[in-house]
Amino acid sequence: MPGISSAGKNDLKTPLFFSHVQADMQQVEALMRCQGADCQADLRAALEHILGAGGKRIRPTLGLLTGRLLGAPHERLITLAAAVELLHTATLVHDDLIDGALLRRGIQTLNAQWSPPATVLTGDFIFARAAKLAAETDHLPLMKLFAETLAVIVNGELAQLFVARGTADREEYTRRIYAKTASLIEMTTWAAAMISPVDEVVVESARLFGYNLGMAFQIMDDVLDFTGEVREVGKPVGSDLIQGLVTLPTLYYIDEHPDDPGVRMILGGQYPLDLAVIADLVQAVRTSSAIPRALEEGRAYVEKALQFLPASPQGIERQALIDLAHYIVNRKS
Amino acid sequence: MPGISSAGKNDLKTPLFFSHVQADMQQVEALMRCQGADCQADLRAALEHILGAGGKRIRPTLGLLTGRLLGAPHERLITLAAAVELLHTATLVHDDLIDGALLRRGIQTLNAQWSPPATVLTGDFIFARAAKLAAETDHLPLMKLFAETLAVIVNGELAQLFVARGTADREEYTRRIYAKTASLIEMTTWAAAMISPVDEVVVESARLFGYNLGMAFQIMDDVLDFTGEVREVGKPVGSDLIQGLVTLPTLYYIDEHPDDPGVRMILGGQYPLDLAVIADLVQAVRTSSAIPRALEEGRAYVEKALQFLPASPQGIERQALIDLAHYIVNRKS
Repeated sequence: MPGISSAGKNDLKTPLFFSHVQADMQQVEALMRCQGADCQADLRAALEHILGAGGKRIRPTLGLLTGRLLGAPHERLITLAAAVELLHTATLVHDDLIDGALLRRGIQTLNAQWSPPATVLTGDFIFARAAKLAAETDHLPLMKLFAETLAVIVNGELAQLFVARGTADREEYTRRIYAKTASLIEMTTWAAAMISPVDEVVVESARLFGYNLGMAFQIMDDVLDFTGEVREVGKPVGSDLIQGLVTLPTLYYIDEHPDDPGVRMILGGQYPLDLAVIADLVQAVRTSSAIPRALEEGRAYVEKALQFLPASPQGIERQALIDLAHYIVNRKS
Repeated sequence: MPGISSAGKNDLKTPLFFSHVQADMQQVEALMRCQGADCQADLRAALEHILGAGGKRIRPTLGLLTGRLLGAPHERLITLAAAVELLHTATLVHDDLIDGALLRRGIQTLNAQWSPPATVLTGDFIFARAAKLAAETDHLPLMKLFAETLAVIVNGELAQLFVARGTADREEYTRRIYAKTASLIEMTTWAAAMISPVDEVVVESARLFGYNLGMAFQIMDDVLDFTGEVREVGKPVGSDLIQGLVTLPTLYYIDEHPDDPGVRMILGGQYPLDLAVIADLVQAVRTSSAIPRALEEGRAYVEKALQFLPASPQGIERQALIDLAHYIVNRKS
């Protein structure tokens, strides 16, 4: 696997694997955007605004590639990819409201322009449309998985709201990143396999492929929170820790520096955290071996994911999925 | 059909039709409450609090009776009834947050005790569980209907947020009460028929039964907003009009009194409304013929509903549904 520095910046800007699904993705975008037809005009405008903000579309890309690899029927795959991205979008709309975030993907969030009531309802509407699309894949186990995944995500967010601040615990971290990110990415590859003409063993492999990729994805996000360029990540460096959220780099740092004043503050259960001490801790973590150790763990998840990547004669999709997997741990934002 | 004054108060307090489904309803309650198992403790407590607040359980009662009338399989019917009530509950949780309501059904709303973020997420969680239960009825058309109904409800709430204030328009009113109330009640009887061993004609009859009943239900709510006892309704008299929401009694009053100062203010598009003028208007509507006219319209919907009540040898359920239909327009809260 290439190291983080081996991929050129231009490669990261427009990774090739996106181009393999470009035509499909246009159909996915169109399907998402038409969900506001026949709706109240302000709602339609809000949906346009949110979807127009773009985003990497990692999830539908992953779903499309996995489904094509496994021979999923075209129309159902497009529907599934749109359902997955809308579910993700709905959770972002409510998340931004909860965090009071004013910008996402460089443009204003809905709640920066709309009232909280309108934002809550727009998120609900997008949930409803995601559920409708999921139902239109005509696959009941997929529908159940979809509902279950939403419950896992929301339960995880509530746990983060109530208990995670200031907690430094490996198991809690693993549960949290599963709920926050890996559950939906796992669902994406799992569901793509479910609607494909493949046996249960392949479905389970596809699930594990997505699960491990999802874990790697969030670990990388947590590393980038320390190492990323503010301009590219769009948040201040160490924003998680500033908010009392202990992620993998900090967990490694705690292991190695139990006597660091910031570490002692966290382990002592002092919350809210002293921001001056935290600022020092962020700098210390950034430049410590905790970063390469966390990166290594992310890469190990990617390696594990690739072990579960179903074998297939479809060479193009398989290579694109390998590229996508490497992109996840090599990206800069 | 009995007049509004012909039903004794005690009859209204514990209508007999509820007792026909008492055993089933206990299973529905248990199924709803166990949705929080394995969840974050605060979320579990919130779910307990919300479900413990009770409510009339009109929707699951209607679903259970309709399903039993039509021979729906027992377990799927219980699951459907729980899904319907949880969907309703989730919309109430977000509604109360949006309205800033501190009390519902005489007990504190979630947002009176919790932060807005926790309330948003709890509503989302209940949506997720409702969707999961709907999927567990193993009926894809039902699942699509479920998602579509959620979209209709939310779109209606957004329309109310953006455009309905101060609007006096019959068609807009009809659309609004369909979205707000009738759509879910229509879904309830429709879905109960969908999972029953009956033909398409009966399914369509069951849908129209629910649709008309739902329209009557909201019209009666709108009448009670003027005529109800504050203690029983739990809101100030005329609260809709005070908030700029023109409902059926006011629409009839406007027809008959185009020169009333309050009417001229509304028709002139003056919004926000002058509260002193509105207080006079509320009193005028309360004591005018607009109330019996609106009531008559509600009753006409009930009569129409009963024309669509499927014929059946199941005498007990059929009579209970007739009683439930009459209860809707005879209730005091």
